[in-house]
Parts: sequence; structure tokens; C-alpha cells
Amino acid sequence: MNRNLFSKHISNNRVKINDTFWNEKIELVRSEVISYQYLALQDKIEGAEKSYCIENFIKAAKIVKRIKNGEEVPVYPADKWQYDENNSDKNAFHGWVFQDSDVYKWIEAAAFSLENHFDEELKKKADKFIDIICCAQLENGYLDTLYIINDREKVFTNLKDYHELYCFGHLAEGAVAYYNATGERKLLDAACRFADLICNTFGKDKKRGYPGHEIAEMALVKLYDVTGKSEYLETAKFFIDERGKKPYYFDIERGRKTVNDNYHYNQAHKEPRYQSEAVGHAVRGVYLYSAMADISKIYGDDELYSACRNIWNNIENKKLYITGAIGSTVDGEAFSFDYDLPNDLAYCETCASIGLIFFAQRMAETEPDSKYFNVAERALYNTVLSGMAEDGKSFFYVNPLEVLPEASEKDSRKRHIKTVRQKWFSCACCPPNLARLISSVGSYIFSENEDTVYINQFISSGTETDKADISIKSEYLENGKVRVKVNCKKSFSLAVRIPENSYIKSSHKFVSEKGYAYFDIDKNSEIDLQFDMGIKIIKCSNRVRANIGKAAIMRGPVVYCLEEADNGKNLHLLSLCKEPDFEYKDGFIFANGLREKADENLYSIYSEPQKEKCRLKFIPYYRWANRGENEMTVYIRTE
Amino acid sequence: MNRNLFSKHISNNRVKINDTFWNEKIELVRSEVISYQYLALQDKIEGAEKSYCIENFIKAAKIVKRIKNGEEVPVYPADKWQYDENNSDKNAFHGWVFQDSDVYKWIEAAAFSLENHFDEELKKKADKFIDIICCAQLENGYLDTLYIINDREKVFTNLKDYHELYCFGHLAEGAVAYYNATGERKLLDAACRFADLICNTFGKDKKRGYPGHEIAEMALVKLYDVTGKSEYLETAKFFIDERGKKPYYFDIERGRKTVNDNYHYNQAHKEPRYQSEAVGHAVRGVYLYSAMADISKIYGDDELYSACRNIWNNIENKKLYITGAIGSTVDGEAFSFDYDLPNDLAYCETCASIGLIFFAQRMAETEPDSKYFNVAERALYNTVLSGMAEDGKSFFYVNPLEVLPEASEKDSRKRHIKTVRQKWFSCACCPPNLARLISSVGSYIFSENEDTVYINQFISSGTETDKADISIKSEYLENGKVRVKVNCKKSFSLAVRIPENSYIKSSHKFVSEKGYAYFDIDKNSEIDLQFDMGIKIIKCSNRVRANIGKAAIMRGPVVYCLEEADNGKNLHLLSLCKEPDFEYKDGFIFANGLREKADENLYSIYSEPQKEKCRLKFIPYYRWANRGENEMTVYIRTE
Repeated sequence: MNRNLFSKHISNNRVKINDTFWNEKIELVRSEVISYQYLALQDKIEGAEKSYCIENFIKAAKIVKRIKNGEEVPVYPADKWQYDENNSDKNAFHGWVFQDSDVYKWIEAAAFSLENHFDEELKKKADKFIDIICCAQLENGYLDTLYIINDREKVFTNLKDYHELYCFGHLAEGAVAYYNATGERKLLDAACRFADLICNTFGKDKKRGYPGHEIAEMALVKLYDVTGKSEYLETAKFFIDERGKKPYYFDIERGRKTVNDNYHYNQAHKEPRYQSEAVGHAVRGVYLYSAMADISKIYGDDELYSACRNIWNNIENKKLYITGAIGSTVDGEAFSFDYDLPNDLAYCETCASIGLIFFAQRMAETEPDSKYFNVAERALYNTVLSGMAEDGKSFFYVNPLEVLPEASEKDSRKRHIKTVRQKWFSCACCPPNLARLISSVGSYIFSENEDTVYINQFISSGTETDKADISIKSEYLENGKVRVKVNCKKSFSLAVRIPENSYIKSSHKFVSEKGYAYFDIDKNSEIDLQFDMGIKIIKCSNRVRANIGKAAIMRGPVVYCLEEADNGKNLHLLSLCKEPDFEYKDGFIFANGLREKADENLYSIYSEPQKEKCRLKFIPYYRWANRGENEMTVYIRTE
Repeated sequence: MNRNLFSKHISNNRVKINDTFWNEKIELVRSEVISYQYLALQDKIEGAEKSYCIENFIKAAKIVKRIKNGEEVPVYPADKWQYDENNSDKNAFHGWVFQDSDVYKWIEAAAFSLENHFDEELKKKADKFIDIICCAQLENGYLDTLYIINDREKVFTNLKDYHELYCFGHLAEGAVAYYNATGERKLLDAACRFADLICNTFGKDKKRGYPGHEIAEMALVKLYDVTGKSEYLETAKFFIDERGKKPYYFDIERGRKTVNDNYHYNQAHKEPRYQSEAVGHAVRGVYLYSAMADISKIYGDDELYSACRNIWNNIENKKLYITGAIGSTVDGEAFSFDYDLPNDLAYCETCASIGLIFFAQRMAETEPDSKYFNVAERALYNTVLSGMAEDGKSFFYVNPLEVLPEASEKDSRKRHIKTVRQKWFSCACCPPNLARLISSVGSYIFSENEDTVYINQFISSGTETDKADISIKSEYLENGKVRVKVNCKKSFSLAVRIPENSYIKSSHKFVSEKGYAYFDIDKNSEIDLQFDMGIKIIKCSNRVRANIGKAAIMRGPVVYCLEEADNGKNLHLLSLCKEPDFEYKDGFIFANGLREKADENLYSIYSEPQKEKCRLKFIPYYRWANRGENEMTVYIRTE
């Protein structure tokens, strides 16, 4: 690692977005998603699956009060918790073990939204939730409603499956965001009190556990950034160093003997620093890898960073969908083996692509190489955006690259492949995660270090730094034109990411390195950039069995797809002509194709397939499934 | 239905096989499979999973003795049975609920084997098992060791999941076969006593249930054939008529309310006569459909027969693998939806193809159309034969059309796809089923009615009928030549099946109808037949998404495949040239192919794939996986 190249992103509260495309998404999240979720968390949406989230906090607050008053409090067997829609005991904890995290994610989204667009009403709503949350905190700082409601004696006894440390992580992330947005410390203080308890509980000469679902590691680093308390950093590092050591803590806490390699699902099969392949639950994976990148950078830990690079390369080169999605298998919502990227069986969770963006950003902050934000951009413009309907009212958890509604209905192996976006789920991880990511998209545009400002994304926006005030006017998605206006305060280097598969033309001289164009800036400048927005036929490696003989269409970072609504049924019968004669119009792509005539007999003597000409219509992948249930495919056969 | 066209197969005990290819298989089953299974059933194979089969019968016999002596007998909760390798109570029933059926299938295989090759030692072994079995029968005729050992009070209380009637079916089939082979009635009498109990228990004004796993229906028809007892036929008909009626018996026996369409898995979602699609567990399905064909023919039930035809057509035209395999999905080991025939996720159980042969034979006996034995032939020469290793020592349950060992190891969705044949399983349905089918292959060659003898398979063999003594000398697999020698006793019509995708040339005049060539015979004749054994490139309908742009190679009934052992890794990179210049040599097929160069990058701008010439080597599908673990594919891309 070269410390001179380290950089830090400019966070959302210092970036003003003024971008037609993104303003609309951000506003949709604010007006639709955040408002809807505010009600959903309180179970005020008729017909929706119940959240129980706020209800649990209110129950927990009552327990806390009774404890303070010295009253007796009930015990429910916390270790026998299971999700039960018809839980008969109304006073027990309801919902999933990670239910608390939903409100924390909501607060984080609200915080970013307030940074973009201050809204007194929204702030009042957030403050109301914060008050409720804080009332539920135990005297010692502990704050997880499952255990507070059900059994205070059992805290931290099942790190593997019960998400206390995960919920803490989201609490801390929400608290930091809310503090950054409003300057108010109430939730931050609550998070710090819980963090203090965790730091006092876990460590080398203390309890040796680590989170079953990672995020606390990354969150503790954020708390450290804001508070400067080194204990937080040390505990984050401890969690990473301790993870995967034998005997496995997850065996110890269950009183089992460690016999074999295990816990790949939790990335706890070996010490993170010795890992080189992305395995297990994809969201957990990228959350861990993000924290590993944080910790390796802060501690200058080359070995850990080398693990990060190996894992990154494994994802980028062998486990990444063209849409920036990860997690090929529904079993464990997990990474599969190298080059196993099925289109129709994919898991490709929205949350996993969000986590991949976190990982990418951290890698780029250690080592300026365009590949990180190339991947982040893929994830952002494809899988993340496809996670939300155009009206902001429904969501995909799973983002497949090929859908046949009949298969989703009749084939149990594809039951996770939804053909239309779903309303709020009881397990509502993706919608609030998506809300916080879109609301904080400003954080992913600029980064800086002592002598360089990096432009990583081409979103019309502005920021002020000690070197210059910089504004971007981007027509990137429309025509590839980007104008960067620099009000120079002192001389510095402006580094602009050159997107994947693109050239860069500029009005100013630059030097390219690792996919960034470096401009020497010593005066006010207006730099005109032109990127390649030509329509590209992209080939997926033929090592990926699902895609051999096929191609996908991209324009800039946007992956396109075919839908039945435009191209009729049986999309697999279509192919792309050798001379496609592409036309780009109103955001759609048209091309010459052929349609194979459907065969009558199941088996017959081979003859050349009969094909007729047709004009194919491609739409951006992120816009799919906005016209009801229908077939969709990203890949099309090539002639 | 046209009664004049009805025919009946000439059973194995009347057919003498003298065929190089089949004699070897039959002898392998006799010398290897039947001997091995004899020991396996008694848990005398070191290192193999335990069967418990004979052990259970011995335990049950002890219980029967104690009951006779008026002694007290223990009760184990039969309704709480579960498969448990480490079942701690040694006196309880062990193994699967259908464990009894293994010895019955073994006896059936042994019976057929004795017909082919009388072997005093084998008969002694069978008689020993029969003695053990008969000692385990209760006074009232009941004979299922799970309930006899565990709880006599609970018999027939869980028809849905516990396989009493299934085990009875195999008992009856084994008993009929053994009686046909040896003329000895001991097991037949035991089966009849159990059948009498079943007939007295189930019926219109009695208990209204029906089997969860079908086979008793088909078996009762066989018992009727041998004994002439009409009650057996009536009960078989009752089981079929009652099945799927609402409220569902499977709900009634569990005290549930029937709310919705359910029990597709058991083909009990609606009355069989109203079914038109093959659904649910594939083995159960074809066993039921076979019985439906039996019953519709015997009763002249056109409606039921129409259901058989619809289901048959659904299988043949939409749910059949090129290898004669059925059951596309591991979930429920079941039929999937139309045209859903994945190669690499297939289930394709050996037993299901065996059951399909039963169904095909019965359909052909009602309506002479070559399509039935075309499918049976596909199943026989491909999926059935691939079920057994060339040394007869290991077996496939699942017969996929594409295998990547890495996927079977690392992808839990493909964990059922074994890359090498397995030794005896605790759930040993396929090996004994395969043994009985191969040993009885003589039953699938000839059928007859008053004026016609049908030749359905081209296996060197002879039979004597009242019309003529007929012998077949077949070089079918080698060169397509078949000579039929007829010693005529009276004039009749000889009908010879014309194989799918083949011409027929003959030394004698004939008339073709529905795929059979009809020869008028009124004197001793030697008919020389020539079938097309040219190598065929076969196209699977492009409605099957997995196979678009691909083809398979067949020669006669034999499907060929590519193995890594001959063609290197990454078989998916291979393609078949437009001018393949086929060569057939020593049972193998060689052809011109191309090999795509493996791509370096996961994603790149599309360019024409680079390919180099190669010579492909195809082996018969039934011979795959005899050289250790390696990749295999039936389908190859076409240029």
C-alpha cells in the first residue's frame, strides 16, 4: 500500500447534487420510499406484511422502565425464538431477529435525504423514532429489542444466528449519518453507549466472539471516524482478526467441537487475512470485505489488504454479473464457484450490490484504480436501480438476468425469482438499504487526498474543498459529455475516472494512469470531457456456461435487456444480427434481430433453424418489470 | 379403444434370449448385482450403508411369534418414524418406510434371472428370503415390517407417506414373478393373503383411501392375471377411481380440511380419469399411469384410456429427455412444466425410466403404435443402461445429460447430480429395479393377439406361440440387420416395429401402419430386415430453452455423449461442424468439431470467438462415467 495514494470520499453532506436523472431518484426515495417505510415500520399500512419493528422498541422501552422501577419482568425463551406470524404471546418479541435494523436503515436514509433536501416534517418523524429507540436502551448501553424483551440474561449467547451485533452496526451507521446530517447527538450517544458495552465485552482478554452477520466492523470504523475513540477501531480490528480462528467461536458458543472447515456461509471458515475467494452469503461477504479494506488502510496492514485485493479480483474477474450483481445462488443467498453465473437461477440481491459499492469505494480510497468505481457504477446503474419500481412503491430483492414467469410459478428452484416487484416484505432488508444508498449517492462522486481530487461518478453536482470548488455538469447518460468547472484555490491534480469500455477526449491535457485521467490544475478551468456512449455488444467470458454463444448490450454503464412487452414471448428464440444497425432513441436501443420459428416436434432430425427478421427493442435493465409480469432477458444469442 | 387391436406381451418365461449385447447385461445382473444385493439386504457388505431390510423381517417374525404365543409385544411410535442411521432402540424398525420393497424387488429380479438361467444356488437364496418373509406375516395377512415391529394398531393410518401399500405392490409383483418362474406358490399365497386383507379393508363401503406411492394398482392387476380373483381387479380399479376425489383422503387421514388443489406430488390432485398432464413424483406417476392403462383396457373404460393417451402425449411431446428419461426436477423427484428439460439440473431417475417402459408396454398393448416402444427403447438403451456401471458394481439414481464435477461438488442445487455411480444406497430403489428390468427384458420383445404377433424390440431371441415359432437374429446395434425366422403353424400377421428416425427395407412385402410393418405369414419364412443405423444429428425442440443452438448425436436407439476423458475439459466450448464427416468405429462416433478458445476477461467488447479444429469422440450415453469423475454432455453446440 502506498499511503500517498490514500484518499477519502467527500461525504454526501458536502456534495450538492443537481442532476436530472439522480434528483428524480432521490426525490422518489424521499417522497415515496421513506414515507411509505415510515408507516410500514409502524404497521400502519393496511394489507402489508407486518414489520413489528417500532412495536418491538415500544415493548422494549416498557421493559426498560419496569427494570428501572425494580419491577419483575417476564422471560421468553430467547434462544428458542422463531419467526412466527401468529406468535400467540403478544408481549414477546415479534418479527425477525434483525428486525431492529430496519428502523436504523430508515434513519440513515432519512439523514441522507435531509442532507439533500431539508424537510422539517421528515426530521420530526426521525426524531420521534430516535426517542422511541433511546427509551428502549438498557442502563448498561445494551440495545437489541429481541433480547431486551425476551430474556436479558441471554445477550451475546448466539452471535452466529441472532443479529445483535448486526443491529448494532446499523444503529451506529444510522446514528453517524443522522449526526452528520443534523449535528444532533442523541442517537449517536446511544450508539456509543452500546459500542462501549461491546468494546468492554469483546476483545483479546475478554469474550472472543465476532458477528455472525458482519457490519459492526464497518460501523465501528465510522463511529471511530466521528468520535476518535480508538477502542472502536480496536474492536473492529479484533472482530476481523478473531474471525475464523480455530476452534471456531461459533462452535464454542454452541458447545460443539470444531471438526472441519465450516462457516463459509459467514466467511468465518478461516481468518479473513488468509481468505482469497469471495464465499458464502454475499451481503455478509461484502460487508466484511469493506471493513477489511477500512482496517487494512487505517493500520497499514499489507497482508489484510492483499486479502482484500485477492477477494476483489475474485469477484471482479470470476463472480460478477454484467449488471454488477453478485451472489449466484439462492442457497445461502451466496456466492457460487468461479464462473458460475446462471442468469435464471441467480440470487443477485439488491443489498449485495449495495455492499459491493461500499467495498469498491473503500478499495478505491486505498488505491486509485478505475476498476473499483467501474464495478460500483455497474452495480449502481443496473442492480441497485432495478431494485426499485419506477413509482418507488415496490422492490426487487432478487435481480435475475433472465425471467420466464412460467418457471417462477411452476419450478420450485426458481421460486425466489419474482416476476414483479414486491411491496414491503416482513424481511425488509433491501428497500431501506436501497433508500439509504440512493439518498447518499453524493458520497460516491468525489474523493480527495492532499494533492488530488478524484471524480469517480459523472453526476451533475458540486463540492467545495480546500483546493477548489468543483462542479460537474453531466450529460453522461445522454451523450457522454461532462463539463467540470474548477474554481481553483491552490494547484492540485484533478483525477477523472475513465469509464470501462470508453475512450476519453478532453479540452485539456491529461496523463492517464490506472484508468484515471490526471489533469494539472493551477487556475480556474472548465474542462470538457467526452466519453464514449456508443452502443456496445458485450461478450461474457465463455468460461461462463450460461452465456456461451450469447451477448449483452450496454451503453455507457447501463446494461440493456429485452422484455416480452416489446419483443413478444419466447425471448430465447431471438438472436442479434451480425449487422445490428443499432439505433438509440428515447433511452431505448433498437437492433436487427432474427426470430427462430418454434419447432413442432420435441425431437427431430437436425435441420437449419428457420428464422425471420425482426427489429429488437432493448430497454435499460433497471427499467424492467414496470409493465406487469413478462419474460425478460439480458443476454441474447448472436448470429 | 378397439378390442381387436388389444395385445398382450409374451412374458419373459416364454422368451429365450440369445443376444450378445443383452446376454452380457443379463449375466452381469445375475453374477454381480443380484449376488451383491443378496448380501447387501442382509447387511453383509462391509463399508456399505446398512439396508436393515432382512433384519426388519427377522424382527417382525419374532413379533409375530410372540403374538401367536400370547406374549406382550412392545410399541414404538410408528407415526413418529424417521430415518435414523443411529437409531438407538435396536428392537425398533430400522431404515426407510419402504425398506421391505427391496427384498421383493430382489426376488422379482431373481425370478426373471432364473427364467433366463436356472441356478440352484440362487433359487435357494430366494427360498431362504421367502421363508423369512412369510414368517413375518401377521395372522390376518398383513405384511409390512414397519408397522408389525413398531405398532400393529396403526396400520393403514398414513397412506400418504408410509409405504405399506407400495411394499405390498412389490411383494405381489415379486410373488407373481417367482410363481411364473418356479411354479411355487408360497410367496404368491402370502401376497394373496395380504391382498385379501387390503381388498377387505379398502372399497366403496369400506375405507376410502388409496396408495401414497402407487404400484399396488398395477400389482393387483398382475395378481388378478395369475389368480383370476376379481376382487383384486376391483380394488385396483377402486384405488384409481377414488384417487384425487375431494375431500382428499390424504387430508381426511390427517384430520385436515381440504382447501385447495394439492397432492400433485402424488398425482392425487384430481381423479386420474380427468388428468391430462404428467405431474409430481415421476416414478409414482408412471406407476399410476401404467395401472390406468391396465384398468382402462380390462374394463374398456374409454374415458380413463383417453386420460392415459393425454398423459402419454404430454410426456412424449413435452416432458421427455432424448435419453428416455423423465422427471426434470430434484424437488419432489418430479415432472416439471412443459418443455422444462434442463440438462444439468435434471433428476431423470433410473426407476422413472423403468416405470415409463411399463407404461409404454401397456399403451402398446391397447393400441399398436410404434411410438410407445420407440420411447421404451430410448429409455432402455440410454437411461436404464446408464443406471449401472459396466462392471455391475455401482449405480446411478440420477441420470443427467450434462455434468460438471465442480458444480456437483460446489453448487448445492446440483448436489443430486452424482459424477460417479454409487455403491448400494440406504435408499436402494434403483439398483434392484434395474436388476428386475434387465432380467426381464425378454418380456419386452414380443406381444400377440389372436391374429398378430408383434416384434417390439430387436434382441436376438426366440419364442413359441400357437401361430408360429419365431426367432430373431439381430445385428440391430451393429449394422441394423435383423433376420426373423418363422416356423409357421397357421397363417397370421407379423408386425415389426419400425424404429423412430429409421427406414425399413425387407426381403418380404409388408404394409405399414402406425409405425409397424405388417407381414402376412402363411408359411415358414425368413424375413430379412434392414434398419437405418446411420448417425443422426438430432435437434431438440427450440421450445426447450436449455438446448437451443445445440444438437445431440444418435445412432439407432443409442444416444451418444462427449466425455472429458476423450475430449478434454470445458466440453461447453466444443461445437459440431456443419460437415462433421462422421466415422463409426468400435461403438464410438468421431466427428469434426471446433473448440472455442477460452476467454481471458469476464467481460469484453464482443468479437467473433476464436475456434480451432478438433476431432470429437462420442461414446454411447449408457457407457458414460466408467472412467472416473469427468465432465459429460449429451448436447453440443452446432455451427
